[in-house]
Amino acid sequence: MNGGTTPSTGPDLSARYGGRVPLQPHPDRLLPPNPDTRAVARRLFDDVRDLPLISPHGHIDPRLLADDEPFTDPASLLVTPDHYVTRLLHADGVPLHQLGLSDRDGVETAPPREVWRNFCERWHLFLGTASRQWIEAELHDVLGATVQPSAETADELFDELAARLNKPEFRPRALYDSFRIEVLATTDDPADDLRHHRALAADPTWRGRVVPTFRPDAYLDATRADWPQSLDRLASVSGIDTRDYDGLIAALESRREYFRDNGATATDHSAPDAGMEFLDTAEAARLFDRVRAGQADTGEARLLSRHLLGEMARMSSEDGMVMALHPGSRRNHHPDTLRRFGADTGHDIPLQMEFTRALQPMLERFGTNPRFRTVLFTLDETVFSRELAPLAGFYPSVYLGAPWWFLDAPRAMHRFRDAVTETAGFHRNAGFIDDTRGFCSIPARHDTARRVDAAHLAGLVAEHVLTEDDAHRVIRDLNDRQPRTAFRL
Amino acid sequence: MNGGTTPSTGPDLSARYGGRVPLQPHPDRLLPPNPDTRAVARRLFDDVRDLPLISPHGHIDPRLLADDEPFTDPASLLVTPDHYVTRLLHADGVPLHQLGLSDRDGVETAPPREVWRNFCERWHLFLGTASRQWIEAELHDVLGATVQPSAETADELFDELAARLNKPEFRPRALYDSFRIEVLATTDDPADDLRHHRALAADPTWRGRVVPTFRPDAYLDATRADWPQSLDRLASVSGIDTRDYDGLIAALESRREYFRDNGATATDHSAPDAGMEFLDTAEAARLFDRVRAGQADTGEARLLSRHLLGEMARMSSEDGMVMALHPGSRRNHHPDTLRRFGADTGHDIPLQMEFTRALQPMLERFGTNPRFRTVLFTLDETVFSRELAPLAGFYPSVYLGAPWWFLDAPRAMHRFRDAVTETAGFHRNAGFIDDTRGFCSIPARHDTARRVDAAHLAGLVAEHVLTEDDAHRVIRDLNDRQPRTAFRL
Amino acid sequence: MNGGTTPSTGPDLSARYGGRVPLQPHPDRLLPPNPDTRAVARRLFDDVRDLPLISPHGHIDPRLLADDEPFTDPASLLVTPDHYVTRLLHADGVPLHQLGLSDRDGVETAPPREVWRNFCERWHLFLGTASRQWIEAELHDVLGATVQPSAETADELFDELAARLNKPEFRPRALYDSFRIEVLATTDDPADDLRHHRALAADPTWRGRVVPTFRPDAYLDATRADWPQSLDRLASVSGIDTRDYDGLIAALESRREYFRDNGATATDHSAPDAGMEFLDTAEAARLFDRVRAGQADTGEARLLSRHLLGEMARMSSEDGMVMALHPGSRRNHHPDTLRRFGADTGHDIPLQMEFTRALQPMLERFGTNPRFRTVLFTLDETVFSRELAPLAGFYPSVYLGAPWWFLDAPRAMHRFRDAVTETAGFHRNAGFIDDTRGFCSIPARHDTARRVDAAHLAGLVAEHVLTEDDAHRVIRDLNDRQPRTAFRL
Repeated sequence: MNGGTTPSTGPDLSARYGGRVPLQPHPDRLLPPNPDTRAVARRLFDDVRDLPLISPHGHIDPRLLADDEPFTDPASLLVTPDHYVTRLLHADGVPLHQLGLSDRDGVETAPPREVWRNFCERWHLFLGTASRQWIEAELHDVLGATVQPSAETADELFDELAARLNKPEFRPRALYDSFRIEVLATTDDPADDLRHHRALAADPTWRGRVVPTFRPDAYLDATRADWPQSLDRLASVSGIDTRDYDGLIAALESRREYFRDNGATATDHSAPDAGMEFLDTAEAARLFDRVRAGQADTGEARLLSRHLLGEMARMSSEDGMVMALHPGSRRNHHPDTLRRFGADTGHDIPLQMEFTRALQPMLERFGTNPRFRTVLFTLDETVFSRELAPLAGFYPSVYLGAPWWFLDAPRAMHRFRDAVTETAGFHRNAGFIDDTRGFCSIPARHDTARRVDAAHLAGLVAEHVLTEDDAHRVIRDLNDRQPRTAFRL
Repeated sequence: MNGGTTPSTGPDLSARYGGRVPLQPHPDRLLPPNPDTRAVARRLFDDVRDLPLISPHGHIDPRLLADDEPFTDPASLLVTPDHYVTRLLHADGVPLHQLGLSDRDGVETAPPREVWRNFCERWHLFLGTASRQWIEAELHDVLGATVQPSAETADELFDELAARLNKPEFRPRALYDSFRIEVLATTDDPADDLRHHRALAADPTWRGRVVPTFRPDAYLDATRADWPQSLDRLASVSGIDTRDYDGLIAALESRREYFRDNGATATDHSAPDAGMEFLDTAEAARLFDRVRAGQADTGEARLLSRHLLGEMARMSSEDGMVMALHPGSRRNHHPDTLRRFGADTGHDIPLQMEFTRALQPMLERFGTNPRFRTVLFTLDETVFSRELAPLAGFYPSVYLGAPWWFLDAPRAMHRFRDAVTETAGFHRNAGFIDDTRGFCSIPARHDTARRVDAAHLAGLVAEHVLTEDDAHRVIRDLNDRQPRTAFRL
Repeated sequence: MNGGTTPSTGPDLSARYGGRVPLQPHPDRLLPPNPDTRAVARRLFDDVRDLPLISPHGHIDPRLLADDEPFTDPASLLVTPDHYVTRLLHADGVPLHQLGLSDRDGVETAPPREVWRNFCERWHLFLGTASRQWIEAELHDVLGATVQPSAETADELFDELAARLNKPEFRPRALYDSFRIEVLATTDDPADDLRHHRALAADPTWRGRVVPTFRPDAYLDATRADWPQSLDRLASVSGIDTRDYDGLIAALESRREYFRDNGATATDHSAPDAGMEFLDTAEAARLFDRVRAGQADTGEARLLSRHLLGEMARMSSEDGMVMALHPGSRRNHHPDTLRRFGADTGHDIPLQMEFTRALQPMLERFGTNPRFRTVLFTLDETVFSRELAPLAGFYPSVYLGAPWWFLDAPRAMHRFRDAVTETAGFHRNAGFIDDTRGFCSIPARHDTARRVDAAHLAGLVAEHVLTEDDAHRVIRDLNDRQPRTAFRL
């Protein structure tokens, strides 16, 4: 058992923060306090608040839209699958099985109503977090809730929201329309047959645009114990023998083509760091064979992995798929939680990052190649001003990814703009990324980002660094032209 | 001789800044300039300004309260022992013996009146520093001064303050009462018999609560030349033979118990980095024997040291003492100053830090153990958003230490809150730490922190990220519940 | 060809931002938005706006003032030589030969009018950048332009500015007078005969003060392929045989003396990191011989380079020349651009930096030596609070260099002051550095820095951290006393 601030040990805290409090997200939330600056910010925000949403990177399961099954209840929608939420409750001492996650040790998983209650009782723990703002907007604007979550309102909210989620207008496709999403990119395994994307594309009643993103991490990481099985899977779907290096390369190229044929414009890559190698083919093949034969040590396997990532860059420079890099996370920091509850359970912890040296080989080769395009993300904000802005401020192929994950939050977004704009201006940005598996949070996330854009630009107008006219053009570009350009949408 | 901006070379500077200037710390200092936001901040500050002080980590000498001898003069109180003050004067070219420190080279130490003058003449050098704000409040609120220090006021201030310090109400115990300190933790050597803590506890006239903190650095650091003597000292006080590994472990456990019996709830650890090892006992014992026999190289000694720090984590997971980690300082950067004037003389310089990898072994073992609790401090603010907030935002045992030392200052505190809150909320914070050996600065330090809390929260209220009601609850929690919880007080 | 946002692919962008827009830099630009704080900032700025400019470090070619030839056209003045400008246009897809740079591959260089047009059409890309602010002020205050650059105004601006640049009052010396530069430091090769500095000094019609700065990088970096030729050049100008170590040392000392005789007060050093070694002479000589004989590996050559940098520190401690350190840039990140267009073409990318350990050997030896003075610059802002402020806050010889290069921009300057002042106060600063080869940008750069100083100090006054009186003294010191003191001008 974790000892923490569970209500049973700290009823006072919940009682003080709880009760029945109206849920009324303020219309001017995140806009600057100074009245004149706020007025500018309001005008800027009004200019983009209703623009369609462009979502070039995220983790929505395409089956959600293909099958269009209703969401069942608020816990299954907002709590259990959201590691931004479960992690903070876990830090408060609530075990993950009490938040609806299945426990390999067999401890009973709490039912949704109980999960929801565990969350509502601790809603105050989210004060000041990005999640609090998204969920408030989600509850209010999408799900029609009118009271803040608390111990007192938990049950009524559960019933109200579960009932509402069952209505036709709350099915995924209906919500998709109401969200005014222009394009939604999912994140997909190269071996995926993309049946849901294909089903949607073939469906005459569906007017949306859902595109896959090629995420080949498992096939590039030769240090993984299951790498051989991944290669077999790849061989199976591609019909190309991947037991040798040339086969692997050909299979990856084939799957990239398949993804492009199904609408993909980008690839996505996550690794502990951004390092790439560019070995000659003979050396790569030799390493490949050694790893497959179980003769390679970790250093060799890692070298091969870096080379394969370099091959992804080469392919991007040829096929034009935008290469999004999301490095710098130490995945599954807590082995016992991984074992019991699986991955993506709130304990991926960022690592210090370096891009200047790591990306030099890639940019040496492809940095000025007009077909090559890369979007760089980081969890280490020290690289914003030091490395990313200088790189994006020279290389035509490099775009600045939006503040990611732990940095996808208003204050961090302000720090990002503060750190990169004076070197790279506004037109090297790739635009906002919602990066979410929580479908109903998409509007709130984009809304938050637009408010922060408006606030930030209004500050620059107030300091006479930008004219208000230029600020309007910039905020439109940030939310329209930039993501389209950066991701070739 | 250091050539610097001593008045003898730059009278103009001192003359321009000096004179007789009233000392009037502004009642709204550190509160936001915007009038509406300031009003919110005032209300928030008023809510906590008179709360008792909880001081879970500091360096007050307990003898001060046990013996209750009067302070002698302002130089001995405010200048000579305060390396935050002497370091900046040293940077201006004033040798440390002119600031009252004893010089092993035998150069004559300046008497207190001269030390005080050297400080007052250079008071302008402290503009913008945290020290300036603390000392202004200290001089005004505690010591009753009414003019700013300067060349012109140096002598009168010296006489006035020395006289005042001699009065009964300025004795340490009387001041302790007036400071409304609820609990004060000192930092103590494991071999300390804690006589002063025991004397206070046994004193029927003393109602305060002064608790020791177990600081075992000297006994864990097997790279130190005096490590064997430290072990002998430990053996002597514990009555346990520390010439073998098991003995050392048993002696440390015994002293921890002694400390707990005398009120300690926490341990404290400072090392160049946060790395720990968890070797099996046989391997640890083998290393121990090699080091004691003088056969180990630095790498082995360091490995043993990291293992012993891991043993401290294990013990904390068993005995429940909160493990505060203060890593990342390169102690005694200037050897000649160390030689002449000793340690803690203003030239400990921070190092870059890493926690994600360094703490993974500890958190793998104890991170979700309800008995284990750790508070993490850093001098490298890059880890706030990147590592500390994500760790505290998942592990129930991890709390965020207040901005420490060079970062214990208003702007840095704002950056801290900015960087951690959006990931970890407010309830993973351990609360403010005064971390001082300067007794009379305690109220000023807590007052500064509360003002910054009020300003920061008011800013969030002004942006409608928090309601004012929730901001009131949060500021109370930050100054009451959080430190009690984090430090098990 | 680079695919980018050239007007031919994105006319819409240029059309939206372009047109005829009056160029009217706002008189309150960069001052705080809050009316009361702005009023304080205005008063502070007014106090220093007309102070003479002290420029202790920059890259103006002294020939410019010696020969006093007119500038030819706005492209040759503002675009082609300015890598802060060309880099962002390059990132937009404009090849450097279209910006007036000569291409070793023989591709035709665009003529100035076309270069100017390429720039004007993309002026919106500079929104939010430091360059935008400098160039607006430059165009308006120095060159008398009244419209913003755009596709529509490109030609008329070109003609207007080219004509104006041809007038007597726009010659370099006349501009120098109008800029009210009190002292201008250039950056010079140790083998330079300083003929232009000497010509100016000997010219009875010239009342300015232009001093050289000793920049010996090429002579210290033993890893460079051309190092032997550099040593030969040094031997030639000094008359001292540099084929052995003692000769190199003597030649460097001789050139330093020559520079001092011609007004130099400082040396300047750029290297990937700040590391120094202090080998004994025999070991250094041994390494030297090995490198010159082509027998040394890169590690040995680097070791020798670090030792030679340490020798520069030693010499500074003896001859009193201020040692400015500008480490942490990965020069020439893109080999093909280096090959075709040369160095300093916008692709020097910063590296992570470390000073605490790197400078310890130097500061151990010279840190408290009154003759030694060093000014530290960084491109990695993480070291501001962590390393530079603590070092400058103890060592009398250490001064804080102004935010450099990518960090020479308003928001970054605020972050700098935020990060260092609470530890080091204001009087460890070396003051603003324009660091430019763009002569006409000098006033704009200093003006920007003074506005930021005023804004920053006004914020502290508004929070009652400084009195307004003290803020006035501080802003004068930052712009007058500090640079004179730090650079011994």
